[in-house]
Amino acid sequence: MEERNFSIGLDYGTNSVRAIIVDCANGETIGSAVVGYPSGHQGVLLDRENHNVARQNPADYLFGLETSVAAALEQAAEHEGFDPARVIGIGVDTTGSSPMPVDASNRPLSMTPAFEGNLNAMCWLWKDHTSWREAEAFTRIAREIRPEYLDICGGTYSSEWWWAKIWHCLVAAPDVFAAAASWVELADWVPSVLAGRDDPADIVRGVCAAGHKGLYNAAWNGLPDAEFLARLDPALADLRGRLYATAHDLDTPAGALCKDWADRLGLREGIAIAIGAFDNHYGSIGCGISEGVLVKVIGTSTCDCAVVTPENNPGTIPGVCGIVEGSILPRVYGIEAGQSAVGDLFKWWVEGVCEGDAATHEVLTIEAAHLAPGQSGLLALDWNNGNRTILVDQRLTGLILGQTLHTSRADIYRALIEATAFGARAILERIRDCGTRVDTIICAGGIAEKNAMLMQIYADVLKTPLRVTTSQQTCALGAAIGAAYAGGAHATLDDAVAAMTGLGDTTYTPEPAHSAIYDKLYALYRDLHDAFGGVTRSADLSQVMKELIDIKATALTPKSKENE
Amino acid sequence: MEERNFSIGLDYGTNSVRAIIVDCANGETIGSAVVGYPSGHQGVLLDRENHNVARQNPADYLFGLETSVAAALEQAAEHEGFDPARVIGIGVDTTGSSPMPVDASNRPLSMTPAFEGNLNAMCWLWKDHTSWREAEAFTRIAREIRPEYLDICGGTYSSEWWWAKIWHCLVAAPDVFAAAASWVELADWVPSVLAGRDDPADIVRGVCAAGHKGLYNAAWNGLPDAEFLARLDPALADLRGRLYATAHDLDTPAGALCKDWADRLGLREGIAIAIGAFDNHYGSIGCGISEGVLVKVIGTSTCDCAVVTPENNPGTIPGVCGIVEGSILPRVYGIEAGQSAVGDLFKWWVEGVCEGDAATHEVLTIEAAHLAPGQSGLLALDWNNGNRTILVDQRLTGLILGQTLHTSRADIYRALIEATAFGARAILERIRDCGTRVDTIICAGGIAEKNAMLMQIYADVLKTPLRVTTSQQTCALGAAIGAAYAGGAHATLDDAVAAMTGLGDTTYTPEPAHSAIYDKLYALYRDLHDAFGGVTRSADLSQVMKELIDIKATALTPKSKENE
Repeated sequence: MEERNFSIGLDYGTNSVRAIIVDCANGETIGSAVVGYPSGHQGVLLDRENHNVARQNPADYLFGLETSVAAALEQAAEHEGFDPARVIGIGVDTTGSSPMPVDASNRPLSMTPAFEGNLNAMCWLWKDHTSWREAEAFTRIAREIRPEYLDICGGTYSSEWWWAKIWHCLVAAPDVFAAAASWVELADWVPSVLAGRDDPADIVRGVCAAGHKGLYNAAWNGLPDAEFLARLDPALADLRGRLYATAHDLDTPAGALCKDWADRLGLREGIAIAIGAFDNHYGSIGCGISEGVLVKVIGTSTCDCAVVTPENNPGTIPGVCGIVEGSILPRVYGIEAGQSAVGDLFKWWVEGVCEGDAATHEVLTIEAAHLAPGQSGLLALDWNNGNRTILVDQRLTGLILGQTLHTSRADIYRALIEATAFGARAILERIRDCGTRVDTIICAGGIAEKNAMLMQIYADVLKTPLRVTTSQQTCALGAAIGAAYAGGAHATLDDAVAAMTGLGDTTYTPEPAHSAIYDKLYALYRDLHDAFGGVTRSADLSQVMKELIDIKATALTPKSKENE
Repeated sequence: MEERNFSIGLDYGTNSVRAIIVDCANGETIGSAVVGYPSGHQGVLLDRENHNVARQNPADYLFGLETSVAAALEQAAEHEGFDPARVIGIGVDTTGSSPMPVDASNRPLSMTPAFEGNLNAMCWLWKDHTSWREAEAFTRIAREIRPEYLDICGGTYSSEWWWAKIWHCLVAAPDVFAAAASWVELADWVPSVLAGRDDPADIVRGVCAAGHKGLYNAAWNGLPDAEFLARLDPALADLRGRLYATAHDLDTPAGALCKDWADRLGLREGIAIAIGAFDNHYGSIGCGISEGVLVKVIGTSTCDCAVVTPENNPGTIPGVCGIVEGSILPRVYGIEAGQSAVGDLFKWWVEGVCEGDAATHEVLTIEAAHLAPGQSGLLALDWNNGNRTILVDQRLTGLILGQTLHTSRADIYRALIEATAFGARAILERIRDCGTRVDTIICAGGIAEKNAMLMQIYADVLKTPLRVTTSQQTCALGAAIGAAYAGGAHATLDDAVAAMTGLGDTTYTPEPAHSAIYDKLYALYRDLHDAFGGVTRSADLSQVMKELIDIKATALTPKSKENE
């Protein structure tokens, strides 16, 4: 074996950024650091009177970059054989679609004196839903004149995505829009900073964000055409020319580390900067994605990724966010789906309503684990933050039903976990129904690693074996794998993935008796899902509460079933 | 004015019994005491594995009788002019239908050695719902062969009522049923004890319980006929002969105080014992009920009472529990309706889920009062304990919808209060739709007195002025009024009511702007109500969540409506 090489993966999450240093030979993490964003509420700028608002301060990204890499390098320095000079590449993943307006020198507008502190000049975080009207109008107009656009994004354009957000900025803050030389996805902006791009026209954009959120597609020559955009607003057609003509997969690096940032980070100038991509896409690489595998990164929200070779491309999957060539691995189609609130939903219940803390999460997990499937008598919809897949509708809200005067907070905690499992099943069934094979589910993310109860519920509900990755930071690991490949440590990306990823020993196997009860509950979930989600306008819900009572009765032990 | 007379009112609630001593001339309370029942959870015997079970220990009733009267008398003794010898009558109200099995000497079976500690030999508390199967079968058979029975009880027989409970005992505990010489409503049993009845055949039964829960009616010669009961079970037809042939209104006393209890209570032997009735019926007398008034006693649950003269008798009101001649005031028809969980619902949220206490109730009341109608974005169904009126279905459960990740416990607290107001509106509309006049609503009960926010929400939702009684113990006061009348202090019951009741100065008047929003929310509530309650099997709920979001947006101040 030749001399050891290392790469850096940077994972920009919703509340913090993580940097890891890994060994390119085996993916071992030898340094890791997390830095919370200093601004707003846990890094998110909110408006308490408009729950749709979620922004981030771009200055936090630079602060986080410098401090997290410094701390990770410090940790790595204690590792025998490590030398910063042997770092051969940096990869970056971020949340998305998180676009930000920049000036002619690629500076975020919020970092210019004219727009300092202006919420609309900040980064528009993925979960910002202020643009729901624009998303609806986009879908309506596309359906009319460009139905092919909707085929690759599941039939509905979302308020979480690129064009809706930029359009809403144009409507709500025309001064900000007018001042923007261009707009950049966070996933492209951080690599562009590292590569020293001081003109937005020079940014090398990734096809992951472009294809899944910007509707970039080779079939129509890149971004949506100017005629279409002019139907939304002529200013958007004009903006098109200031964006990009081509977007790239992992075979093209975003650039090379510039002198300024090389000095600031203590790394060699000119090492490879891998193309930027969304956290879940790099995360699925960090999980060892391949055809037949569904990767679920379970965190604040859940992202689902799969890949299919061109001959198996389903073309379109209704309600599924996107099918984009090269968005995960070069030359195969990446499929992306997701749930808008998962960890956030449990956090809402435990911290927002029960006013508890981490210890409360643990207590409720223990109590909820004592419940049998169906025993709570409850059924919930996991829509507190809208429904990303398969309804693509942010104007949906949460629902809990089945409460008696004896329902406890642990009952509801478990019902919310089950609701996210049912939401996951709706996605899995939709993907399979469209012909995509899923044999195994590989999970990653803090919840998958820590909460065995949740994982077993998911296995029982999804009726598919679940495995968990060995890496606790698959997104950052995926970015580091991309960096290792960009830096030349492996001949192919497949080689890099094979060498640098692994799975834990535990397999969560469906328990048939539980699955049988969850089949019944899922049928009721779909009744609610279809009724409130608008799939049907003629719902028979008259037996839902009674069936839950019956399921609850059979879920108990025979002795206690009916003691009267 | 002649020499002063006093009467005693005893109010047997769900968790405790209250005794008050009042001045027969003006209704002034000069002594009052509450005694909690010692057994079970706050007086209720539960089964944690069957949430339908709710029983009470009859021994608690006797303990509560003696100790509460003694304490009230002790307090009255400090009042100038009071003398126990000047107490001229005792009246008793209780929860119901709360039947209990008794032996040949009128002893509750649970107080006999053979059945000590046996849950099925205890009093079957009003909110026991174990007999839902029997209630359904009763309704089905009555619909087939005795449809007239259902006309006076709203079209559906309930698991909270007499025959269903006794039938369920026969099915689930045949030994208890076989040992019962007779069954007695708690409302009749306490007066029978005071009157020294040691043979169940001698008990003077009240038409309130008999008519509203036992389906006693002069039109079919008393209780349901033996042929009908034999269709349920021959043993019930046999029991009919061991019950009663006639039931009485307030013009007939239950008896005279026996020597034993006169000695134990320190009162004169032979004073009048008024006929027993349910708490809400005596409560409506304590509120000064008359035609055109709807009395709402708002407590753990809510009971609604109205009276109509024979010429205005609507005959039947679908889903309304009962229309019984003489059940409230002699010679007029009493109408009874109710909601199974009101205070219990708030208590569940605050204590059961939020794990708070009385201080938490106060904090949440203050926070909820700061919300405008519609501002929470939430909508709930008040069915955690089933729906008594207008669906008469215990196999319904709670529902909360409209949650975002920002929904607080105060938001939900207010939504639950609003849900009970919407449930109250469904009852009011149903009563009015059937031709019964309601000009004013008079409220009583701890919640009505203490929670001005709730009262204003009710006024806004019901679009009818609300007043609150001066008495804080209208049920006990009503019983004392019955006792004063039975004891001869007033020539007519109307005179007694006029002299002994009063209303507070506050009138809660509907705020038109609030009512307009609540009209919209009520329409959505009815959509959910009808869909989950089985009124329709073809519901369009596709816009419910979106309309709530729209209402929420307009509920905020214009500034904050859309800050983007």
